[in-house]
Amino acid sequence: MFNLGNFLTLSTFGESHGIAYGGIINNFPAGLEVNLEEVQHQLDRRKPGQSAIVTQRKESDTVKFLSGIFEGKTTGTPIGFTIENENQKSKDYSHIADAYRPSHADFTYDQKFGIRDHRGGGKSSARETVNWVVAGSLAKQLLPENVEINAYVSSVGEIFCEKPYQDLDFSQIDSNDVRCPDAETAEKMISKIKEIKKEGNTIGGTITCVIKNLPVGIGEPVFGKLQAELAKAMMNINAAKGFEYGSGFCGAKMTGKDHNDLFNEDFSTRTNLSGGIQGGISNGMDVYFRVAFKPVATILRPQESIDKAGNSVTVEGKGRHDPCVLPRAVPIVENLAAFVLADLFLINRIRRI
Amino acid sequence: MFNLGNFLTLSTFGESHGIAYGGIINNFPAGLEVNLEEVQHQLDRRKPGQSAIVTQRKESDTVKFLSGIFEGKTTGTPIGFTIENENQKSKDYSHIADAYRPSHADFTYDQKFGIRDHRGGGKSSARETVNWVVAGSLAKQLLPENVEINAYVSSVGEIFCEKPYQDLDFSQIDSNDVRCPDAETAEKMISKIKEIKKEGNTIGGTITCVIKNLPVGIGEPVFGKLQAELAKAMMNINAAKGFEYGSGFCGAKMTGKDHNDLFNEDFSTRTNLSGGIQGGISNGMDVYFRVAFKPVATILRPQESIDKAGNSVTVEGKGRHDPCVLPRAVPIVENLAAFVLADLFLINRIRRI
Amino acid sequence: MFNLGNFLTLSTFGESHGIAYGGIINNFPAGLEVNLEEVQHQLDRRKPGQSAIVTQRKESDTVKFLSGIFEGKTTGTPIGFTIENENQKSKDYSHIADAYRPSHADFTYDQKFGIRDHRGGGKSSARETVNWVVAGSLAKQLLPENVEINAYVSSVGEIFCEKPYQDLDFSQIDSNDVRCPDAETAEKMISKIKEIKKEGNTIGGTITCVIKNLPVGIGEPVFGKLQAELAKAMMNINAAKGFEYGSGFCGAKMTGKDHNDLFNEDFSTRTNLSGGIQGGISNGMDVYFRVAFKPVATILRPQESIDKAGNSVTVEGKGRHDPCVLPRAVPIVENLAAFVLADLFLINRIRRI
Amino acid sequence: MFNLGNFLTLSTFGESHGIAYGGIINNFPAGLEVNLEEVQHQLDRRKPGQSAIVTQRKESDTVKFLSGIFEGKTTGTPIGFTIENENQKSKDYSHIADAYRPSHADFTYDQKFGIRDHRGGGKSSARETVNWVVAGSLAKQLLPENVEINAYVSSVGEIFCEKPYQDLDFSQIDSNDVRCPDAETAEKMISKIKEIKKEGNTIGGTITCVIKNLPVGIGEPVFGKLQAELAKAMMNINAAKGFEYGSGFCGAKMTGKDHNDLFNEDFSTRTNLSGGIQGGISNGMDVYFRVAFKPVATILRPQESIDKAGNSVTVEGKGRHDPCVLPRAVPIVENLAAFVLADLFLINRIRRI
Repeated sequence: MFNLGNFLTLSTFGESHGIAYGGIINNFPAGLEVNLEEVQHQLDRRKPGQSAIVTQRKESDTVKFLSGIFEGKTTGTPIGFTIENENQKSKDYSHIADAYRPSHADFTYDQKFGIRDHRGGGKSSARETVNWVVAGSLAKQLLPENVEINAYVSSVGEIFCEKPYQDLDFSQIDSNDVRCPDAETAEKMISKIKEIKKEGNTIGGTITCVIKNLPVGIGEPVFGKLQAELAKAMMNINAAKGFEYGSGFCGAKMTGKDHNDLFNEDFSTRTNLSGGIQGGISNGMDVYFRVAFKPVATILRPQESIDKAGNSVTVEGKGRHDPCVLPRAVPIVENLAAFVLADLFLINRIRRI
Repeated sequence: MFNLGNFLTLSTFGESHGIAYGGIINNFPAGLEVNLEEVQHQLDRRKPGQSAIVTQRKESDTVKFLSGIFEGKTTGTPIGFTIENENQKSKDYSHIADAYRPSHADFTYDQKFGIRDHRGGGKSSARETVNWVVAGSLAKQLLPENVEINAYVSSVGEIFCEKPYQDLDFSQIDSNDVRCPDAETAEKMISKIKEIKKEGNTIGGTITCVIKNLPVGIGEPVFGKLQAELAKAMMNINAAKGFEYGSGFCGAKMTGKDHNDLFNEDFSTRTNLSGGIQGGISNGMDVYFRVAFKPVATILRPQESIDKAGNSVTVEGKGRHDPCVLPRAVPIVENLAAFVLADLFLINRIRRI
Repeated sequence: MFNLGNFLTLSTFGESHGIAYGGIINNFPAGLEVNLEEVQHQLDRRKPGQSAIVTQRKESDTVKFLSGIFEGKTTGTPIGFTIENENQKSKDYSHIADAYRPSHADFTYDQKFGIRDHRGGGKSSARETVNWVVAGSLAKQLLPENVEINAYVSSVGEIFCEKPYQDLDFSQIDSNDVRCPDAETAEKMISKIKEIKKEGNTIGGTITCVIKNLPVGIGEPVFGKLQAELAKAMMNINAAKGFEYGSGFCGAKMTGKDHNDLFNEDFSTRTNLSGGIQGGISNGMDVYFRVAFKPVATILRPQESIDKAGNSVTVEGKGRHDPCVLPRAVPIVENLAAFVLADLFLINRIRRI
Repeated sequence: MFNLGNFLTLSTFGESHGIAYGGIINNFPAGLEVNLEEVQHQLDRRKPGQSAIVTQRKESDTVKFLSGIFEGKTTGTPIGFTIENENQKSKDYSHIADAYRPSHADFTYDQKFGIRDHRGGGKSSARETVNWVVAGSLAKQLLPENVEINAYVSSVGEIFCEKPYQDLDFSQIDSNDVRCPDAETAEKMISKIKEIKKEGNTIGGTITCVIKNLPVGIGEPVFGKLQAELAKAMMNINAAKGFEYGSGFCGAKMTGKDHNDLFNEDFSTRTNLSGGIQGGISNGMDVYFRVAFKPVATILRPQESIDKAGNSVTVEGKGRHDPCVLPRAVPIVENLAAFVLADLFLINRIRRI
């Protein structure tokens, strides 16, 4: 219970300032020659300290595989892995042992559990996503080779990448610090983030993810619809506030006559407002969705707050924090999507006699 | 696998033109005096033929409980129920046995399963949601009595209910056919839907749901976040295209300084852009979210399409269909939310020693 | 939670004197042409009133499929079914509304749930197994055609079928009322049961089940071992007290030198004390196991007992009861085994790249 | 899928000669002050090299907790742990890279997965049970303090501890190398094992486990019966061949009149052939069960066998192996039982309104 995936599952552990993060991937099929460099590469894309617009924390974020892989191939047995925590400055957090930071999970954890590892946010830290990147980048390798999963930053604050995704060159996603493949927009986003950072403030944005060449038939009719599984996964990302796929919230303004995707004779569709999914099942067109992220709650400015006892306190973010979580969330979205797809892809292999 | 819920689970069955729909609720606690009239009332809110702006199909949608309730109380054993199908005009669908309706699941089901009950869309029909309303309205009775769950139609096409939910009188939701508690907006929406209906067209919209008095502590830290469980449930509704909670997609445009919800001394917050959830766990403030629905794919106008063999055909909706799914989706959203909450509420009772 | 199966799952409901039993089979693959007569045939083998040595209750035990099957084939969507209760003589049970029958679940249900449908034992009735026979006999049809699953009564009280299973003709299992394929032993068993019945007493026994031609590779390495999944299923049968496979408890007396199964050159083994399973995974040899059943607790004789309040009462079975549950348990064991195998068989199809 | 437990779950990983074993315990309640010395103590009871009658391998088997515990208390978040492998003599196993050892899982793993970590049996090694002891001994601490779980060796080969468990002093279980609390029988068992060991042979036996003071109400009515959950867990232990509880296989020889447990006026029962469970639910009497273990398959004598290609080979156990697995299996049985009970105990807290 409370794992990622249905058949192919990921169970995880770890707290921000604990000894290590890690996870177990169950039911990974045997015989896959795994590319572990690629896994580390994805972790490197997520790790802190990559550029001037993300946190300056230094963590090597090195994954260590402990089981389930033998002579370079998966054995079909559980894959255990850990990522050790290295650069814990727990003292940076002693000021919040009793204080409740606004829009953080300090209060709710205390209320729910009656106890809380306050250091770096403990379990509520987004550092948990290292586990997902490991599992997702392995799971990606289970999908047919031509399946492409690309996410990019499509907005930062009020700055939107106005081009439709079809006009973007996804090979340029990692070419700039903000991971928006449109150079001009990227520049504006980077300036905005730098400005916001200087103010000790933070800013939100959206990530768009596009999945190409997904086979037809992925997703289950009821309670396992492809869009629902993707939504669930994405909405578990720490700062996620919204999810839409295909026409999304815009589709809610349209009429059926305009919204319906008419077929071509090869079973592709002329338009793709459906976002590649009909009845919860992929139809062979691009699957695309968008995730909204709120601005990071930790700001480097004094904020009025209260402590555990209800007394007024002032809290102020110290240490090294992300002014904008979006660039680092790009590999999280991509690899999380990969895990969801791999799980449903495997299941789909046994849905017919 | 592919049930609703984690501990309290709902497993369902049924196709549009099959014999019956039904479900099994597992792990429902014993000793609850259940109000079965309320369950039927919720079904009546969802059923077809209620007003001029929804489908004119007639189904009594009467739920029959088969087990798990004894002398008016739950016994702790599985609750089985059925809702018989009555008004099947399967002939209305013979024209689509081989044709693929645009933006329907005909093609994807055929591709996935190699076989498909085409009558009325078979398993892909939204009639499946009768099951959810039954289970959700029972589950609602597990929650503390003061928990209020109200959904309403917040937009139809380009017509939006501009008032914030705080200014609405939820007791007025059912007072008009479209289920928007703002009378003036409701009137506009109804006119719009009638106009659209006359054209044989359909229209989309959004539903906003507000949960009041939810206890603090509901939701799980990782892979069971309250927003993720709600998103998963909502995105399994047939026409749902998007989900957002709290500040949602708007929050993605904001800065941390403006977005953070500062505490009052009683642990409530001054603002509630968090939407009542922090770190995946309810904080005692209102939980609110919005779901986007696309326009119904079945339109009563000829559309070009193809058949199973790839030949051009013309399809045209016959029979009785909803020009706008929103009014009937209101009880679906409410009761589905209730089920999600009841599941996490029960689980929360065993998360501390 | 608390379903049968892992991927292919059965969720069930029903109480002895409720309206109906029923279940939902999830994730049954599409495209199987199902033999529903065979399902009914298996139910008929289980039903009461078949012979002089089982209960004389009359129930037609007719299964009605409500979904998931279209034009004779499975559609891949949930299969819902019900078996209506017909012959409820609830009054036979009014005397136990407050009394606790020895070795029944009256006391434990009351303690656990605080409420209990006492009529016919309610949920604790073995009538629940009708659901398992339906699901198991459908699941059996998913297995390769040459897989044979035969169970038979191998002992009643002190009367044992001394012949090893290899010397028995399984086609004779249903040729007599007790379902022991050795005619001579069967006769002794039948006489014994008749004698016991005359005394108003009941008697226990064992069932042996043999699975032939099971493909190699079925079962999972850890927490899904074939023997563990079989044991779990069998120990859920109401009167089951023990499970052993292969050499079983006898194997515990042996030494490794004598117990090890040496290989033939075709990878079969010379002996089969392993019972066709090594490391939790089938090895292609016969899988065989034995289940112990206690004597039915309801005896038609007065027994001292207590009621809910702790007062002394006398209870005496009334109505129509089985003097020996074994003959009717044979199809339960077979079909339950079939379900377990079909679930693991499907899963095994996705355990390799 | 394929975890231990239903709500409280254990997911595990590790191979005999991999880097480490480990696991994740999910949904462990918050606020428990954990005794980690006790966990290590239980591991020490299981570890190799404790006495002359078990394997002489040396492993410190030190558990390292990586998360979920803060300042000595559980936080309600996932508990991750590892036990590093230290004393891997992988060369001891190079001779079996291609050979199939009789009654081992070499052949079935190869057939199932097409690949196999042959070193020390890889995933099929009973070393996996270190994970279960860690999780079980933590879970034990969730149970009411007066719950006692004691297992002991009740037979080795043909040597049985004839005394009923009621006549044994469980405090003497660890007082001798074989873990049979009856000193006289223990001596005979030890002699027997030494003799067997000298021959390079191995021997089987049984373990009896007695649970005292278990609260009434533990276990679920259908598919979650206490005996079924225990059976499933026990039958997942590597060498387990059989499980029985209460009267077990002996009960199958009895009549209802003799087998029924009559009530005392305090709701206890005069006899306890039911083994403390009625209708799958604990009744407050002692729960007791017995597990049969086959002799270890690795014998230090040449055995004829075949290799992967079907060629004749001779295999001979090298290295350090257990002549009898029973003494080390005692803590496995106890702690596994504790995990099963803790899971069902937690669940029982939410089975009533």
